[in-house]
Amino acid sequence: MFKRYFPILTWLPHYHKRLLGADVLAGLIVTVMVIPQSLAYALLAGLPAVVGLYASILPQLMYTLLGTSRTLAVGPVAIIALMTGAALSSVAAPGSPDYLQAALVLSLLSGGILVAMGALRMGFFSNFLSHPVISGFLTASGILIAVSQLGSLMGVSSSGFTLVERVMTLLPNLSSFNPYTVVIGAGTLFFLVAMRRYGKKSLRAIGLPTPFADLITKAGPVFAVVVTTLATWHWQLADDGVAVVGTIPSGLPALSFPWVDASLWRALLIPALLISLVGFVESVSMGQMLAAKRRQRISPNQELIGLGTANLAAGFTSGMPVTGGLSRTVINYDAGAQTPAAGAFAALGIALVTMAFTGWLFYLPIATLAATITVSILTLVDIPMLRQTWHYSRSDFAAMAVTILLTLVEGIEAGIIGGVVLSIALFLYRTSRPHSALVGRVPDTEHFRNIERHDVETVSHAALLRIDESLYFANARYLEDTVYNLVASRPELEHVVLICSAVNLIDASALESLDAINARLKDSDVKLHLAEVKGPVMDQLKKSDFLDALTGRVFLSTYAAWREFSKAG
Amino acid sequence: MFKRYFPILTWLPHYHKRLLGADVLAGLIVTVMVIPQSLAYALLAGLPAVVGLYASILPQLMYTLLGTSRTLAVGPVAIIALMTGAALSSVAAPGSPDYLQAALVLSLLSGGILVAMGALRMGFFSNFLSHPVISGFLTASGILIAVSQLGSLMGVSSSGFTLVERVMTLLPNLSSFNPYTVVIGAGTLFFLVAMRRYGKKSLRAIGLPTPFADLITKAGPVFAVVVTTLATWHWQLADDGVAVVGTIPSGLPALSFPWVDASLWRALLIPALLISLVGFVESVSMGQMLAAKRRQRISPNQELIGLGTANLAAGFTSGMPVTGGLSRTVINYDAGAQTPAAGAFAALGIALVTMAFTGWLFYLPIATLAATITVSILTLVDIPMLRQTWHYSRSDFAAMAVTILLTLVEGIEAGIIGGVVLSIALFLYRTSRPHSALVGRVPDTEHFRNIERHDVETVSHAALLRIDESLYFANARYLEDTVYNLVASRPELEHVVLICSAVNLIDASALESLDAINARLKDSDVKLHLAEVKGPVMDQLKKSDFLDALTGRVFLSTYAAWREFSKAG
Repeated sequence: MFKRYFPILTWLPHYHKRLLGADVLAGLIVTVMVIPQSLAYALLAGLPAVVGLYASILPQLMYTLLGTSRTLAVGPVAIIALMTGAALSSVAAPGSPDYLQAALVLSLLSGGILVAMGALRMGFFSNFLSHPVISGFLTASGILIAVSQLGSLMGVSSSGFTLVERVMTLLPNLSSFNPYTVVIGAGTLFFLVAMRRYGKKSLRAIGLPTPFADLITKAGPVFAVVVTTLATWHWQLADDGVAVVGTIPSGLPALSFPWVDASLWRALLIPALLISLVGFVESVSMGQMLAAKRRQRISPNQELIGLGTANLAAGFTSGMPVTGGLSRTVINYDAGAQTPAAGAFAALGIALVTMAFTGWLFYLPIATLAATITVSILTLVDIPMLRQTWHYSRSDFAAMAVTILLTLVEGIEAGIIGGVVLSIALFLYRTSRPHSALVGRVPDTEHFRNIERHDVETVSHAALLRIDESLYFANARYLEDTVYNLVASRPELEHVVLICSAVNLIDASALESLDAINARLKDSDVKLHLAEVKGPVMDQLKKSDFLDALTGRVFLSTYAAWREFSKAG
Repeated sequence: MFKRYFPILTWLPHYHKRLLGADVLAGLIVTVMVIPQSLAYALLAGLPAVVGLYASILPQLMYTLLGTSRTLAVGPVAIIALMTGAALSSVAAPGSPDYLQAALVLSLLSGGILVAMGALRMGFFSNFLSHPVISGFLTASGILIAVSQLGSLMGVSSSGFTLVERVMTLLPNLSSFNPYTVVIGAGTLFFLVAMRRYGKKSLRAIGLPTPFADLITKAGPVFAVVVTTLATWHWQLADDGVAVVGTIPSGLPALSFPWVDASLWRALLIPALLISLVGFVESVSMGQMLAAKRRQRISPNQELIGLGTANLAAGFTSGMPVTGGLSRTVINYDAGAQTPAAGAFAALGIALVTMAFTGWLFYLPIATLAATITVSILTLVDIPMLRQTWHYSRSDFAAMAVTILLTLVEGIEAGIIGGVVLSIALFLYRTSRPHSALVGRVPDTEHFRNIERHDVETVSHAALLRIDESLYFANARYLEDTVYNLVASRPELEHVVLICSAVNLIDASALESLDAINARLKDSDVKLHLAEVKGPVMDQLKKSDFLDALTGRVFLSTYAAWREFSKAG
């Protein structure tokens, strides 16, 4: 019981020296690897670079304490940073103290929402972000982020959080690009892409053992950071207009209490809700995938608590909204992390850097960070998925396409909300016009199939109508029409059997319609029967007067109904 | 084809003298009967009484031309009048010229919406007003209207469109009630209730033939109008503070073109949408009921056109939003109307009254009209339905209760929207946690039932899992959990068969989950099979790679799967 709320108790008591070695090494590797991306994502959100470091310390420690995944690494991630930037710039000017305050409010809100959802066991809520909506959103965000980095890669400014804003603010400045910045940006980009594509293969070809080749390939960004920083320092390129990270205050973050006005909290509520949901979905699906590989389990509701407290911690320590990040988690996993302690060691590592070594980051060019973001974000863009979804289902494709378009044109919030609303509307529309089929008996079996698709036996005075949907308000009237049309088109009918094998629910509106159908068929001397009514549905029907008024019978199976009417016919 | 869009062509060519006699008589009766209620509903909407007459002329003629019901009578109705008043008072002060203009804009908007929905064949849209929501809304509106008439019945003023507003504005004035008004109001109320309850029985008891007794009973309101008008005139009660209808401008309405500012149109868009939907649902369900009695049919999409043009007509002739009204339609039907021509004759009758006889209405007391409204509206309040719905389904009851509470406390729009949103949310929540059952074979049959409810045969190395819901984004992850838990709890399992007899849809998110289940079971050496996949679902699965990757088979029937595994076991 206690262990359920403090998953740390499941592994800490059994901790021993061999695990310690593995975890310390993984922690060290993660520290080095995630510093550039933490800085980059803070800049992406329009925040000072150091905020990315702050958000990688206490939040990760809280997750270690309360999260259920053994390998998830928590900190700023690209999508959440993009959403954070969009939300903040709607309430404050980037670079202003208000903007920083708003980031803390956003973290606290999203932490509060996640913890509340966890406490209320509302993890299922995230299920309404359907696969096509998430996939479409990631693709669109990837494009947005890539475009947003174009300016930094060329040393010109651009702003905005829709594609049009970005492009329109970028274009007029393009001609004033900075050649040194372009060399650093394009060079890093080229190097990183080449590393990703050929790194592992080439290193193995020259005789390195696979795990080592793997590690070096993953360390590509660190190598780029070191080289470009040294180059910028050596040739003093900052004097030639190359934007660098500059002075980062050293020391741990001060505790922050952003008790600002209530209107700001209200304005950030919806963005915080979306950030929470998207972050949770991203983090949990990754956590589940990795847990499955090691036959471990994660608990979605406890994950909400873990991620929620991580965000609360970010809000109190000058951070920004965080979640489980794909690249930092994969690095942690591949570096051999055995328990969540690895995450704690990484957090301590980053804390150490923040205290003593921020000076080393002064000459790190922004363009290098932009290239790092661009390369890692482009993996989100999944164009084949578009084709695949189009092929499988037009309505899933519609939800995906609307999400992408709205995200690019109207912004992130509009994209997600539009996608979710459309998914739900399409589902409701589909269930409001249910498929139904007249069925007949597959000869010599007790099995019944659609008379239009299969060669089956039928009787003329009884219609076996299989209803392929739960009966509820949206399709109740449709059912009436279907039955009335059936009866009108076959005057010889004496019995209509509704086969309810696919009916999982009959709500009050549908009950009203069944009553109406029963009464109207009675007027035409046609009896209404039911077959294969499921247990829970039957239990509910028994609570109404319908079964007393029913002119016909309730058959356990379609075959029982068939026997009755085929012998009579 | 042409007949489909001009239903008048289906009956006018066959019109003959016998029908003419019946229709003229019905038209005459309707004229006399509906004048008091038309005046009353205009007052209920905060409009001059004459607007109710205007809205009963051209709109009814347009419906005669384009509507499909043979007996529906169109004009102002109580619910729509209440909604109209609520909408208008949010944009203009009652009694001001702007208020009148806004009524026209509202009519045009709601006419336009209805015609557009008809042209786009979107009649299904109204299905989302579930039975509990409509029933709850009618009950709450009935209460609201009854309370709103209390002031008029006692000769004191009250205002507002929520229960609290009404009661709070009424209470301080109560002590200044007008005794003559109270006598007229309470007397009429008492008379009308007595007529409804005992009229027909008593008149038959004194020897009148049934149809005649029926007609006299229905004419109760007309009798009350005549008597109280004469009394008010004779004793000149208006001088003693009895509110009367007063001067009604005579003559037909002038053509109106409310081309006012765009912001007004925008502000009235949502109310117009709700008025359209509620009016359509009320009208169509009544039309269907009456058509069924005479074995006629009405076409919902053509009804949208008919009601839409009626509202456009109201907007161009100084009217107010209209729809098919329960009481006027029942009067028309009972008076023996044979064709829509009866409605046309009633429209002409009202036009005649408007042109020449409005002076006769000068001394008609407002309290008489208030009593008429109160009595007819109280039939909407359906308290037994509350108990019945509670008994049948808690979630339907929740939707109904929320609709009633929100309508009373927050107003009409909040009530309907809240009810619809909650209905949809509850439906989605239910489908997001689908019922599933392990099934076994009913001995000596090909029929399979829940192992927990029935005494059935099973085999230990194969699980037959029946999924009782369509698989879509909201429940895809739930399915994964169900299967993983099943496999984890039964290590001896070698086969899992998903019985898809109740699966009517597998969307892209669910396909992703099935892929994941298939891959994960493969890792544990468990084969995944499907059974009873429906035609349309199978067609769709064939468009993906899933069936190629599936480790097991697709069985036509559960019995086929059973034979396979029971012989192997």
